[in-house]
Amino acid sequence: MQLGLIGLGKMGGNMRERVRRAGHTVVGYDTNPEISDVADLPALVEQLTESPRVVWVMVPAKFVSPVVQELAGLLDEGDVVVDGGNSKWINDHHHADLLGAKGIGYVDCGVSGGVWGLENGYALMCGGSVEDVAKVQPVFDALKPPGEYGFVHAGEVGAGHFAKMVHNGIEYAIMQAYAEGWELLAASGEVTDVPAVFESWREGTVIRSWLLDLACLALAKDPNLEGIRGYAEDSGEGRWTVEAAIDLAVPAPAISASLFARFASRQDDSPAMKMVAAMRNQFGGHATMAEHAGEDPDTRSDTSETGPGAQGVSKV
Amino acid sequence: MQLGLIGLGKMGGNMRERVRRAGHTVVGYDTNPEISDVADLPALVEQLTESPRVVWVMVPAKFVSPVVQELAGLLDEGDVVVDGGNSKWINDHHHADLLGAKGIGYVDCGVSGGVWGLENGYALMCGGSVEDVAKVQPVFDALKPPGEYGFVHAGEVGAGHFAKMVHNGIEYAIMQAYAEGWELLAASGEVTDVPAVFESWREGTVIRSWLLDLACLALAKDPNLEGIRGYAEDSGEGRWTVEAAIDLAVPAPAISASLFARFASRQDDSPAMKMVAAMRNQFGGHATMAEHAGEDPDTRSDTSETGPGAQGVSKV
Amino acid sequence: MQLGLIGLGKMGGNMRERVRRAGHTVVGYDTNPEISDVADLPALVEQLTESPRVVWVMVPAKFVSPVVQELAGLLDEGDVVVDGGNSKWINDHHHADLLGAKGIGYVDCGVSGGVWGLENGYALMCGGSVEDVAKVQPVFDALKPPGEYGFVHAGEVGAGHFAKMVHNGIEYAIMQAYAEGWELLAASGEVTDVPAVFESWREGTVIRSWLLDLACLALAKDPNLEGIRGYAEDSGEGRWTVEAAIDLAVPAPAISASLFARFASRQDDSPAMKMVAAMRNQFGGHATMAEHAGEDPDTRSDTSETGPGAQGVSKV
Amino acid sequence: MQLGLIGLGKMGGNMRERVRRAGHTVVGYDTNPEISDVADLPALVEQLTESPRVVWVMVPAKFVSPVVQELAGLLDEGDVVVDGGNSKWINDHHHADLLGAKGIGYVDCGVSGGVWGLENGYALMCGGSVEDVAKVQPVFDALKPPGEYGFVHAGEVGAGHFAKMVHNGIEYAIMQAYAEGWELLAASGEVTDVPAVFESWREGTVIRSWLLDLACLALAKDPNLEGIRGYAEDSGEGRWTVEAAIDLAVPAPAISASLFARFASRQDDSPAMKMVAAMRNQFGGHATMAEHAGEDPDTRSDTSETGPGAQGVSKV
Repeated sequence: MQLGLIGLGKMGGNMRERVRRAGHTVVGYDTNPEISDVADLPALVEQLTESPRVVWVMVPAKFVSPVVQELAGLLDEGDVVVDGGNSKWINDHHHADLLGAKGIGYVDCGVSGGVWGLENGYALMCGGSVEDVAKVQPVFDALKPPGEYGFVHAGEVGAGHFAKMVHNGIEYAIMQAYAEGWELLAASGEVTDVPAVFESWREGTVIRSWLLDLACLALAKDPNLEGIRGYAEDSGEGRWTVEAAIDLAVPAPAISASLFARFASRQDDSPAMKMVAAMRNQFGGHATMAEHAGEDPDTRSDTSETGPGAQGVSKV
Repeated sequence: MQLGLIGLGKMGGNMRERVRRAGHTVVGYDTNPEISDVADLPALVEQLTESPRVVWVMVPAKFVSPVVQELAGLLDEGDVVVDGGNSKWINDHHHADLLGAKGIGYVDCGVSGGVWGLENGYALMCGGSVEDVAKVQPVFDALKPPGEYGFVHAGEVGAGHFAKMVHNGIEYAIMQAYAEGWELLAASGEVTDVPAVFESWREGTVIRSWLLDLACLALAKDPNLEGIRGYAEDSGEGRWTVEAAIDLAVPAPAISASLFARFASRQDDSPAMKMVAAMRNQFGGHATMAEHAGEDPDTRSDTSETGPGAQGVSKV
Repeated sequence: MQLGLIGLGKMGGNMRERVRRAGHTVVGYDTNPEISDVADLPALVEQLTESPRVVWVMVPAKFVSPVVQELAGLLDEGDVVVDGGNSKWINDHHHADLLGAKGIGYVDCGVSGGVWGLENGYALMCGGSVEDVAKVQPVFDALKPPGEYGFVHAGEVGAGHFAKMVHNGIEYAIMQAYAEGWELLAASGEVTDVPAVFESWREGTVIRSWLLDLACLALAKDPNLEGIRGYAEDSGEGRWTVEAAIDLAVPAPAISASLFARFASRQDDSPAMKMVAAMRNQFGGHATMAEHAGEDPDTRSDTSETGPGAQGVSKV
Repeated sequence: MQLGLIGLGKMGGNMRERVRRAGHTVVGYDTNPEISDVADLPALVEQLTESPRVVWVMVPAKFVSPVVQELAGLLDEGDVVVDGGNSKWINDHHHADLLGAKGIGYVDCGVSGGVWGLENGYALMCGGSVEDVAKVQPVFDALKPPGEYGFVHAGEVGAGHFAKMVHNGIEYAIMQAYAEGWELLAASGEVTDVPAVFESWREGTVIRSWLLDLACLALAKDPNLEGIRGYAEDSGEGRWTVEAAIDLAVPAPAISASLFARFASRQDDSPAMKMVAAMRNQFGGHATMAEHAGEDPDTRSDTSETGPGAQGVSKV
């Protein structure tokens, strides 16, 4: 079949390649003329000669709306637009309504797989009507992994992005789980070869996973992660997951802890901890004798002539 | 080689079988005479005719010390005792010292794999000297999964159980991650077939894992988990993980959140939330008008004759 | 001065009384004719004969918009509307714009104090222009506590509700702090008189506070809180606080933990913990020997004739 | 009465002064001869001429044991030792046993109040027998605040330090609550004068407290806390609180979040977040087009000649 594909970045470019390998025709558009197949969106639509047309939008979330609006003016009744980006699910309803007013179908599709997707296939979670999904199915089949999993029609419009959002929220907490374990192993002197422990976990354990495999790839290159900063971005979906949890009164302590850990990783100096330190200073916390209990014994001055008891007596 | 194996429960019994399948001789002992190969520990030691002897202890953590003590009186210099149970790593040092005083070696070994280990192999994380580990290596090779992973000599005595403890801490947080995601999907109306979404994640996604596979097995039998109580035990290692994190000043927000969620799951009525409710009652929280903002509109009484403004006015 | 007051529930009714005690005239309206001073909003506005008029809206958040809309049609340029309810701060901008189009001023005001406010005064956090706030100042002075604190002009429109929202977020976490401490004291056998410990903290400690005083009032009536269910509502502002934190990438682990604890308190059976339990069942968690380490020793079967070692050997 | 007081640091020195002001005789010892009243512990005991003697130990937790041991050799049956430091409650039982073997009584006493205690009095939580506590009561009365609160005999030996430990755990979470709220107010542009909001909360609000007063003192000196580093120590008791919670299976999400925030505040670069970043790099997280959704629009390149849709198309 023919596919129009808008946005040819690292994700979109690889997806064009994977769909073409499956024998389909892909007309790709990007604002970068060096990688674009056509000059603009009207040209893209013009080259899609089969009906119904399917146009896949693979652009950053903030640019989906203008693209959808322009497509609404270019496509015909019965065509289908797929939003494959990381859009917030509530926006899907707006886009479906906008296109639906012209008889154009809409499918939202969460895509997972990163740079590995070109070879391994992309996991796809889509939402929309049975009819609209059916029109896109050959493209889904080309993109998905070869096995029996990796594709789901999760529900009506919005269900695909909602499922992908939750996927990412789970991802945050799983990454945090390994990260906390790694820090703990590294902080303790018990285990002498931490990367070897991680590596061993890849088979037979309860915690074997693809993310563990990736962690091991990273440790193989840099066993102490010395070349990496403890700084983690978040892409929006982790935030939406916690917001959705709050809206639905669903406790999400692990996912939110993971999100907050990312926020904190980007702060040079925590404002909140300034306030904690400021309050401690006010009640003399760091200066009271009794609170020195956990401190370095070198900070105490002792006179030794009075026996073991005296050795324990700090001047402070 | 010959192996003495003490404790033939679900784990130990399957491990006896797997080691035997690899061609080794296993003399098993259990307090249940129906499954035991010998009458008592002296009989077990007697049947181990090769030197050095290797005796694997696979009993609940609280029973390891008396077993080790009895073995100290039965074994000879150069023999090796393996503690394969879920012992706390700090106890390993005591056991190693106790046995070491008689020239008996000690290896601690964390074992993962559950009921699947018989067929798939057990992941093994061990600690001890190079010499002692070498004496046990044929047994480790028999127990471990067939691939290149699944076994690690993590460090000196204690390192095996420490690594297994961290493994379990990570496990808690990964399980919590999927659990929060599942609850959120189920609570929202967006996704109509939650088990199908989980199933689809098994390929191509960032969060594919063995625990996800298990979650899907559970959902295949009981799509809404109606037959399962939201009650989760913890086996000690999650607690030790958080305690170790605290000792080492390592932040562990996701793992501790997962542990606390298990604690809370076992409470019929949370004492802490009684106190929260009690304080709310004191300042009239549930009774103030403004705080009714989020409540069911049915609880307000309104008279409708005065227009839209009046409709918004609650009597409380 | 004259004040129009819309909404005479527990909060509004007491506020009417406190403003009257300060010598001002209050015309109150409520949909309940038994407590209302006037029949409807037009009648209320008519009775406010001084210019500029000040009308204070004290209704549940969801009813603020229709009331504001009706007031926009009744009031004149230069008049001021105060929203004293628990509105979300972002709605303040809509209301200010709607009224501003007619030259009517708008002030948002967070009110704290609960049922104690009538006697002790209400803490007030307001947002709006200097001019609009000045028109309401005599009412603020009547409502606020007698000391030097308890009133702040926090910024432009929205700042009052934002400050009140954060106040409530902090409140959630402080309540959770005492609640966790109370549960811990009660769970341990160390302290024999937990209410006495709480009572003692009311002077000289770092944690003395008004909420502690309230906790002690509750414990004085019901020392074990036996008559109270561990069930806590949330009024919206805790949710908005976490949402605002997420929007601003501010880590809020304690406040969000407090919010999630309330969510969990309202669940009979946690769906997330069903999933955790389901996964545990799949890998045989509750059935493996080694995981019995922390369990009741009564569940093991032992035969005692073989000495201390044997006593430690469980059949499972 | 006469009191022997060992340790004259900021806490002990002020306590000597407060007890003396109440008319009692205090013989103080410190390893610093400039502030010590006597040369050594035998001299201190010699100067306590009344029977039974009461000796208060106010030294860092790690030095309590040697002091108690020396006192065990110097005191007589019926005398009482008080440990007023921040000792872990489980050590109290050891000290009580050691002294009890010679008929010497033991009382553990948690002391709160910091540098403010000299003037305002110290809150005291003690554990021990009724008889031993009675012997110390005049000193407790001298030290405690003047009102009806501030002193509790919490239970047997250990109860005082346990209660004080929980007090500090609560303190951590309350401080974190204000700190998160402060950061949120400061991060948002809604509130223009954050210190004024905090100041206003000191009366009439639900969250008024002594810690809030301290926060306001700090903000009065440094409104943006520019001179303070976001670095917070912990003194041991917060850790013990979480450990005790874990031992007793009590969920403590807010207190543990507060503890972990302190740990994190002392890390220049979080090892855990290095691992999160490393995993993200592996699946190309920061490089995929769709994940750029939340990023700075300046990073996209667009060509503008193709209309609104094209403007939304990023090259990446």
